[in-house]
Amino acid sequence: MIYQGPVKLIKERKNIAILSHVMPDGDNIGSCLALYNALIKLGKNVVIIQDDDVPEIYKFLKSADKVVKPGGDYSIDLVIALDCGDISRLGKSAKYLENKDIINIDHHISNTKFGHHNIIDTNASATAELVYELINKLEIILDKDICECIYTGIVTDTGQFQYSNTTSVTHQIAANLINNGVEPAKVYKALYQNNSISKMKLIGKALSLMEFHYDNKIASIMLSKEDFESLGAKDEDTDGLINYARDIKGVEVALLFKETYERKIKIGFRSKDYIDVSKIAQKYGGGGHIRAAGATVDGELNDIKEKIVEDVINVF
Amino acid sequence: MIYQGPVKLIKERKNIAILSHVMPDGDNIGSCLALYNALIKLGKNVVIIQDDDVPEIYKFLKSADKVVKPGGDYSIDLVIALDCGDISRLGKSAKYLENKDIINIDHHISNTKFGHHNIIDTNASATAELVYELINKLEIILDKDICECIYTGIVTDTGQFQYSNTTSVTHQIAANLINNGVEPAKVYKALYQNNSISKMKLIGKALSLMEFHYDNKIASIMLSKEDFESLGAKDEDTDGLINYARDIKGVEVALLFKETYERKIKIGFRSKDYIDVSKIAQKYGGGGHIRAAGATVDGELNDIKEKIVEDVINVF
Repeated sequence: MIYQGPVKLIKERKNIAILSHVMPDGDNIGSCLALYNALIKLGKNVVIIQDDDVPEIYKFLKSADKVVKPGGDYSIDLVIALDCGDISRLGKSAKYLENKDIINIDHHISNTKFGHHNIIDTNASATAELVYELINKLEIILDKDICECIYTGIVTDTGQFQYSNTTSVTHQIAANLINNGVEPAKVYKALYQNNSISKMKLIGKALSLMEFHYDNKIASIMLSKEDFESLGAKDEDTDGLINYARDIKGVEVALLFKETYERKIKIGFRSKDYIDVSKIAQKYGGGGHIRAAGATVDGELNDIKEKIVEDVINVF
Repeated sequence: MIYQGPVKLIKERKNIAILSHVMPDGDNIGSCLALYNALIKLGKNVVIIQDDDVPEIYKFLKSADKVVKPGGDYSIDLVIALDCGDISRLGKSAKYLENKDIINIDHHISNTKFGHHNIIDTNASATAELVYELINKLEIILDKDICECIYTGIVTDTGQFQYSNTTSVTHQIAANLINNGVEPAKVYKALYQNNSISKMKLIGKALSLMEFHYDNKIASIMLSKEDFESLGAKDEDTDGLINYARDIKGVEVALLFKETYERKIKIGFRSKDYIDVSKIAQKYGGGGHIRAAGATVDGELNDIKEKIVEDVINVF
């Protein structure tokens, strides 16, 4: 039922824009490109507009080179927003929503239903799952390229089928994608076997410097501006780094302190089972979820680390 | 068809021994425990006999505490060997095969078919897939405990659904396991969020010391006896370490040199796309596969590293 209106609208319209959120991840890119490649097969004129560049690791997906920056004038009679909880997440691309019919497809619980049609399913592991359903309802024949895009969205948003959003439907879809040509080893290689040397050196330094507190229930990693500079590492090289600290036996809270600019400290918080780290992050003007939160504060790296560790100990 | 004989035999017999290979991994333990828990539901007397201890990370699985060492006398009228390519892989437990009816269930291409009944399917991602089929053919109702064991076998043998052995059937089975109660996040937490501090420190040291050769197409990691000792790390803490070196952009060959005993150097070889590392390993009395091989040689750590790196450069 939820797909009926959108399917009718897509069939009627010719010039379609696909939008998604800033700082694109695998589900954003995978969903956009799957839908783009599918709609092209229906003979539509399609444009994908995104504020930020397609990250390098997703460039193996078909039509990754078709993504354009906001600014251009396009004749558009339908906009489809993917994986966006609210309009602000679209950044500058949001202007293409004005006076247009909007289909809003997302799996975030916080979605504000800003579309004229809303396909929101919080049980979906990824927006790519919903795009898969939509493509099937549109009766577009799946090909290997489309399936690789969907598979990428699912793999990245489920952390390789490991997060609690992974359902039996997720696996059934993965099975169908493989039946339609996806080679898991090929996609994983593109996504996870392309690390930079500086990233690996940064992980090495971070793990070597890792400290433990409160009977090893807290693990903390501290990276200074000099650490980044001496290794030629970027902020994005710390993606996933905090998980190394969390995934140690006995560790309940993991903390990552990054001095990205002088006296500007980004703090990452993770917990494993029972500590609500969002409350601590909120105290410092940040926020997030119970098990994953963040904040940015001004100050000296070591001072802030000691203060936060003390705060965390107090909530145990 | 392949299951018909084994199913009949299992239904007829009462006292069943389950065996598997030395140095147990997730598929060994998951398959053995799944079958054990299922056969107990059929009212059988079952014993799992293994040469080595159940690794700590698999102890959350039901009946992990039921595994016994070879040595005892058991009244056995049927033996089921799981995940074993040949009899020698059983270690001392092989003696329980003598004068017994044997069902041999495995997915390794090298399997010697040493059973009276052989369920060998090289398309299965894990022996656990075949145990799942057998349990269904025996019409034993799946429960959450059995499903967690099978899921563990599949997740570990496919590297989280990433290796080329992952098929649509693998995902269909995973879907059914989740429908029968498996919580992916819970299993992943048990398997992958229990690292030791010394392991993390060893990874940190290894990545910090990592060297690059031949225009960064070769990455090498060298760990001395002193490195292990100073960090309190064990040989098993290097599991998966070489993948960090292989998974770097542009790296084709990754090398790991470990001085586990003085002047005894274990070498790990990995390649990404086109170099056959088994040939280099063979030159040093080792062996393995095209993309993953190993050898052990006597000598000084640094000398051996330089020699091997030279050899690898010569095959590019």
